[in-house]
Amino acid sequence: MTSINNAYAGLSGNYLFSEVARRVSAFRARNPETEVISLGIGDVSLPLIPSVIRALHKAVDEMACADTFRGYGPEQGYAFLREAIRRHDFLPRGVKLDADEIFISDGAKSDIGNFQELFGDDAVVAITDPVYPVYEDSNAMAGRAGVRENGRWSRIVYLPCTRANAFQPDLPDTAVDVVYLCSPNNPTGTVLDRASLTAWVNHAREHGSLILFDAAYEAFIRDDSLPRSIYEIPGADEVAVEFRSLSKTAGFTGLRCGYAVVPKKLTARTKDGRTLSLHDMWLRRQCTKYNGCPYIVQRAAEAVFQPGAEKELAAGLAVYRNNADLMLASFRRMGLSAFGGVHSPYIWLQTPDAMPSWDFFDLMLEKAAVVCTPGAGFGASGEGYARFTAFNSPENTKKALERLEKAL
Amino acid sequence: MTSINNAYAGLSGNYLFSEVARRVSAFRARNPETEVISLGIGDVSLPLIPSVIRALHKAVDEMACADTFRGYGPEQGYAFLREAIRRHDFLPRGVKLDADEIFISDGAKSDIGNFQELFGDDAVVAITDPVYPVYEDSNAMAGRAGVRENGRWSRIVYLPCTRANAFQPDLPDTAVDVVYLCSPNNPTGTVLDRASLTAWVNHAREHGSLILFDAAYEAFIRDDSLPRSIYEIPGADEVAVEFRSLSKTAGFTGLRCGYAVVPKKLTARTKDGRTLSLHDMWLRRQCTKYNGCPYIVQRAAEAVFQPGAEKELAAGLAVYRNNADLMLASFRRMGLSAFGGVHSPYIWLQTPDAMPSWDFFDLMLEKAAVVCTPGAGFGASGEGYARFTAFNSPENTKKALERLEKAL
Repeated sequence: MTSINNAYAGLSGNYLFSEVARRVSAFRARNPETEVISLGIGDVSLPLIPSVIRALHKAVDEMACADTFRGYGPEQGYAFLREAIRRHDFLPRGVKLDADEIFISDGAKSDIGNFQELFGDDAVVAITDPVYPVYEDSNAMAGRAGVRENGRWSRIVYLPCTRANAFQPDLPDTAVDVVYLCSPNNPTGTVLDRASLTAWVNHAREHGSLILFDAAYEAFIRDDSLPRSIYEIPGADEVAVEFRSLSKTAGFTGLRCGYAVVPKKLTARTKDGRTLSLHDMWLRRQCTKYNGCPYIVQRAAEAVFQPGAEKELAAGLAVYRNNADLMLASFRRMGLSAFGGVHSPYIWLQTPDAMPSWDFFDLMLEKAAVVCTPGAGFGASGEGYARFTAFNSPENTKKALERLEKAL
Repeated sequence: MTSINNAYAGLSGNYLFSEVARRVSAFRARNPETEVISLGIGDVSLPLIPSVIRALHKAVDEMACADTFRGYGPEQGYAFLREAIRRHDFLPRGVKLDADEIFISDGAKSDIGNFQELFGDDAVVAITDPVYPVYEDSNAMAGRAGVRENGRWSRIVYLPCTRANAFQPDLPDTAVDVVYLCSPNNPTGTVLDRASLTAWVNHAREHGSLILFDAAYEAFIRDDSLPRSIYEIPGADEVAVEFRSLSKTAGFTGLRCGYAVVPKKLTARTKDGRTLSLHDMWLRRQCTKYNGCPYIVQRAAEAVFQPGAEKELAAGLAVYRNNADLMLASFRRMGLSAFGGVHSPYIWLQTPDAMPSWDFFDLMLEKAAVVCTPGAGFGASGEGYARFTAFNSPENTKKALERLEKAL
């Protein structure tokens, strides 16, 4: 029989959101009349903005004519989109990138899941706890995580984010090669300010480690003095890769487009002491195993960065922000401790009376038909918390909060 | 400095098609007035068929309304498309699959590049020579290929396909865990008949190995008695994964959609002797590192399998087939030995007087401004050959052949 990747045998069987979906399906089967409201998975609910729809129709029409048809595109993405991103997302923040340091993809999840392929088996990886599961699982699948015992991998360094440290990870006290940071954070909804991020960049520069910075939620930052990109911190282009997504910014969860910034200054070392460029390695990886984001999707993404789109996007973001405000206010009125939700679509709710998070999940589902995501699914330090998202409609959000108030 | 994946240091710097593109760019810069005709990379030239365009516009409109908007879809693909594929591509050939054995993706290149993640480091991989480079490179990147010397990896088993064996690989005489087969073949354009494929399936069953069957070009098979799917061979569902693509079938190279068939009967063994389901492992892999093919692209793919599309697709295929016929006839008239091209869009041309294939490439480019793909780029046994594709327009194909006739 074919010898397989042993690391898979150590993975827990169910990906967090699949288990949530399973329990919701079971509830629905038992309660076919009940309308379930999900404040669980971070999917958007608003349709694509008119600018994007127009760009899609136009690009589709191009695909219908031999003269304008586009087949294989560059694996790294079309220059028109890389350039639009450089000018829109970075230049106004004082960040100077070359357009070819930006790699277009089908989303941040793929990029974040795949990027670890560039590291050695012996690379020591640090993640926060709680954490977006993809960072942990993708390293475990690669056999880099060691053995799983009591819900933790032996070779991963966990950086607890708890109420005690205001959900801000402390710098690691052991040597690590790679650190995953997410700000605004999924799941806690908190944000790293300039001072914290500077400390992380300096630490990485001192210790020769690499930061994988997940900025998928940067559009939700309300305070313009907070960094939106890690490259706003001097020297970060020598120690950090940044992942971005149009999923939450522009409702692209079903359209699929994101990008990774891999500066040319980034290097890493082979076991025999040679220095390789991570930019070149990522280019080689993408050219070998990926064929680029669809042309029509890249045209849709380009439309997001054009002048007309700004107002349309702002209107959508305002809806989600108002939901978050409403949730924070309601939870506090209920006497609950709620974190995040200001610069983020996520609210990190402490369960009442330290109730285990899957019990809280089941209680919310059974008594209020409201879906949240149990904090324990994001890591040991997520126990006693639940993640709520601001992505449902204002009507459903309001209804869900009324039901929760009654149930608790 | 971050420890990196050492295997990347052993890879050759340039992916074949990038090197071709580089030389073509340099030629264009030197000869700005000359019209270059590419019979090189396997990209289609015909626009998307009207059925697909209509489906795309309709799906885009759905994304514009809150009621019909789709966010995250299932990572494995929407049921409507999996079911359409099951009914259209397999049932009529007598192949019974469950729809959930079909995993929709953004293309066969991604699936083929990623699937090796499921194997152990010690898995012995066999590939044909010449070969589609992704099979080799993706295993090399995973550190499974050993050391590269004289253009070959020490731990990969190469199965030469030469004129002597009519470009049909012989069964391996050493134990292998995984065999990559491609039929109709890229680059040789030849096809495995039922007897050969049966021998491969039986060999895999006897030796407990796994076949990764790349059927990206099955639409080009003209003889209905030839197998289009490996599952037409009894017992193949216990030893084979099949990869398919809409790129060549329906011109989706720029739209990005393909699928992998991973039967539930497939198993593999961990080092400590446990048996795992490859279907479950692939599901876990996809759910962790992938977020699904865009909804609008899946609706476009669905349209390919609906009754109205058949005629439109056939018209496009006929254009490419006529090109292949014309090329075969021309090459033979020039006194050259040409293979493939009957059940495939690829023609495998033996260079005159055993000219090295990159020299032949340069000669064709300089003297005829025609781009082919040098056989040596596909492996050692490709030396002395060049791959020509039938995907250009009839006019350009004719013009390129006239130029070649003059140049040779």
